[in-house]
Amino acid sequence: METREIIRKKRDGGKLHREEIESLLRGYLQGMVRDYQMAAFLMASFLKGLDDEETIWFTDIMVSTGKRLDLSEIPNPKVDKHSTGGVGDKVSIVLAPLLSAADVVVPMIAGRGLGHTGGTIDKLEAIPGFRTDLSLLELRNTLWETGVVISAQSEEIAPLDRRIYELRNATATVESIPLIASSIMSKKLAEGLNGLVLDVKTGKGAFMKTIEEAEQLARKMVEIGNASGVKTIALITDMDEPLGRAVGNSLEIRECINILKGREEPGLSDLILTLGAYMLVIAEEMVVFNENDDSVSFKDIEITDELLDAKRLKLQGLIDSGDALSKFVEMVESQGGNPEVVANPALMPVAKNILPVEAPEDGIVQEIDAEGIGRASVLLGAGRQRPDESIDHAAGIILNRKSSQEVKKGDFLAVLHYNDDRNLEAALKLVRESFRIGKEPPPERELIKKVIF
Amino acid sequence: METREIIRKKRDGGKLHREEIESLLRGYLQGMVRDYQMAAFLMASFLKGLDDEETIWFTDIMVSTGKRLDLSEIPNPKVDKHSTGGVGDKVSIVLAPLLSAADVVVPMIAGRGLGHTGGTIDKLEAIPGFRTDLSLLELRNTLWETGVVISAQSEEIAPLDRRIYELRNATATVESIPLIASSIMSKKLAEGLNGLVLDVKTGKGAFMKTIEEAEQLARKMVEIGNASGVKTIALITDMDEPLGRAVGNSLEIRECINILKGREEPGLSDLILTLGAYMLVIAEEMVVFNENDDSVSFKDIEITDELLDAKRLKLQGLIDSGDALSKFVEMVESQGGNPEVVANPALMPVAKNILPVEAPEDGIVQEIDAEGIGRASVLLGAGRQRPDESIDHAAGIILNRKSSQEVKKGDFLAVLHYNDDRNLEAALKLVRESFRIGKEPPPERELIKKVIF
Repeated sequence: METREIIRKKRDGGKLHREEIESLLRGYLQGMVRDYQMAAFLMASFLKGLDDEETIWFTDIMVSTGKRLDLSEIPNPKVDKHSTGGVGDKVSIVLAPLLSAADVVVPMIAGRGLGHTGGTIDKLEAIPGFRTDLSLLELRNTLWETGVVISAQSEEIAPLDRRIYELRNATATVESIPLIASSIMSKKLAEGLNGLVLDVKTGKGAFMKTIEEAEQLARKMVEIGNASGVKTIALITDMDEPLGRAVGNSLEIRECINILKGREEPGLSDLILTLGAYMLVIAEEMVVFNENDDSVSFKDIEITDELLDAKRLKLQGLIDSGDALSKFVEMVESQGGNPEVVANPALMPVAKNILPVEAPEDGIVQEIDAEGIGRASVLLGAGRQRPDESIDHAAGIILNRKSSQEVKKGDFLAVLHYNDDRNLEAALKLVRESFRIGKEPPPERELIKKVIF
Repeated sequence: METREIIRKKRDGGKLHREEIESLLRGYLQGMVRDYQMAAFLMASFLKGLDDEETIWFTDIMVSTGKRLDLSEIPNPKVDKHSTGGVGDKVSIVLAPLLSAADVVVPMIAGRGLGHTGGTIDKLEAIPGFRTDLSLLELRNTLWETGVVISAQSEEIAPLDRRIYELRNATATVESIPLIASSIMSKKLAEGLNGLVLDVKTGKGAFMKTIEEAEQLARKMVEIGNASGVKTIALITDMDEPLGRAVGNSLEIRECINILKGREEPGLSDLILTLGAYMLVIAEEMVVFNENDDSVSFKDIEITDELLDAKRLKLQGLIDSGDALSKFVEMVESQGGNPEVVANPALMPVAKNILPVEAPEDGIVQEIDAEGIGRASVLLGAGRQRPDESIDHAAGIILNRKSSQEVKKGDFLAVLHYNDDRNLEAALKLVRESFRIGKEPPPERELIKKVIF
């Protein structure tokens, strides 16, 4: 099959056959399709689109070019959660041990931060010794032992994904819904899952600025997941404002530990329990193990509010009992991290300097721009602009006030944590501008905007 | 300027600034913009278009990244002709010496054949010793001496053009009117011309299958040429049927020599004289040399049929007098070729075998599919499918009958000339299928369809 003809077909808006996508991707892996041909194909796909079937094939072939975790012999349901990325989004770090405490196996392959959004892997690396570069074999062994693992994407899984992402990044073809969906799902489908809950962020701090875009992306991913035998549910959730109070790696792990210890954080705690409840619904109500072999089928049930409440209650119980925290300790230990951070978070990197940001007037916080806070945290060193930059795990921002809260002039709105003061002034300005203060209470924000099955 | 942002702008249908196009092309020349970024840009440009101004800038920057011929000290008008390519199109080889005999300087940089269309350079290389790899310095010296030269594009002229063409060829972005126009014009504008006549082919054997496409391309090129100080006129001409009777390199040179010796060939002779007449109108009526410096301005005149007839008559006179043939001999000698071919064309490669194609029935030739004949000649070895293939200068096809001519069953429609018989059967089949024979005389074909100023 001639590469040029495949590009031409997509250029002219045609629908590709599975064999054509396979020829392109396998040819690229083998070096017969060149970077520039893939770049032209990606631009044509960006502008002409890939339909659901093409996206499913694209994803499936991406998965099949790499290895996948085979967890079929583990007799528990395997369910993961993935977020499209936001500011202060540390949900995975609480959810993975929490669901594991509920006997769900969680084989989580997570990413690093880029631009104004943080990454789960960066956050966990704030824990001294914590290894995120587990091989597939190590992942599998750890899952057999502890039932939970959070590790970075290895070259073994969807090896083309990183190359194609780098190409898209260099050629202005990142913001394509089918390409984003297939990139995310190609990693998730290699995890050997039965179920997947997607947290598709929308709003100022999200990749998808509008709910319509978020919904398109969510539908594509749900379509791909279900077509691949993974029961997939997507929640479209708010990312106008940072999640929780901490933004930055050590600071966020500390917040996670507090939540696992039972502290409630408005918004964040609710999101954790809701996402967890959907994971538990899939694991406990929908996954059916066939008694004769390792195969799995699904029972379609109505997900009622009562059912979700029951699951939330169960998860809250596992936090209150300390089981979730124990699982976290077990996970940290199994991945080589120092579990003492639970008792003594100061074992993680701590910033040498702090600088409070004072409220300029009396009033009520109307909103806190998530992207502004995210960009400020990057300026302080907590994130990176380019994939090869290093980060400062100690740096970040604590939000002392969140929206709807009252402030008096001079109250601390936030506190900047930093070692490097090169961009301090710009970061301070950004944080100040991110807080909008008014006289009236702001309209209530809806955290979960839509659920897509 | 960030390359990615330039690609993004074109991707989103924006209009680029001159500085952005310059940053992209100069960056590409310097290796800072990568092949895959250029490929993504070309696909975005293919799908979103480049407007006239962008195309003019693109072309101008392509020219300025290389060297250009400076012929300003030669006190004659410098006029060239360029064809977008067809089957049996040997017009340039007659026109260049013919116009030179009329004291017009013709600095012709020509191309090689690809696919079903032939190339002027390949044809001339059928003449033993004929050099087509002249440096800019050699071009200039030859033009001072003989006033005419036909040579291949060197790396000195528009050095990006070849790289970008190869990239387009590999990424299915060839058929873009602004990119075609700028590729052609970037070479022509480096020739130091005052005037240019473009022969934009349309029909079965042409790149532009419809007259609408041909007209779009013609207008773009006329726009670019005039904006760059080169008086440019485009003729849209028929390429449904091969030009003349010979297709193939030696065979076509032989036909050119016969025409220069005074033989008339229906269609072909007319096209040569008409294109030449427009060149002469520009050279003799429109170009005005400033007496104080080397600058040139243009007089806008109405090109009447009478004027064109007078120019045609003058050119016919230069053929009849033998002056054009003498110029051809001079040109061949000055480029190292053996001028004896004029007296003895068999000094050029001659095929070992010939095979006649007989008429299957009595009738009148309705049409001869130019693309079919072109593809058959490639199968016999006269052309190439890929730029790096070698060709057989002896191979080709002589058309014994052209459309509107009567045939009796068993008459020779054509004769195949070949050394290599590997694809003989396929070529024979193609030639047979290319002739359509009917009972009634076919409608008359219009050779020149439109003139674009």
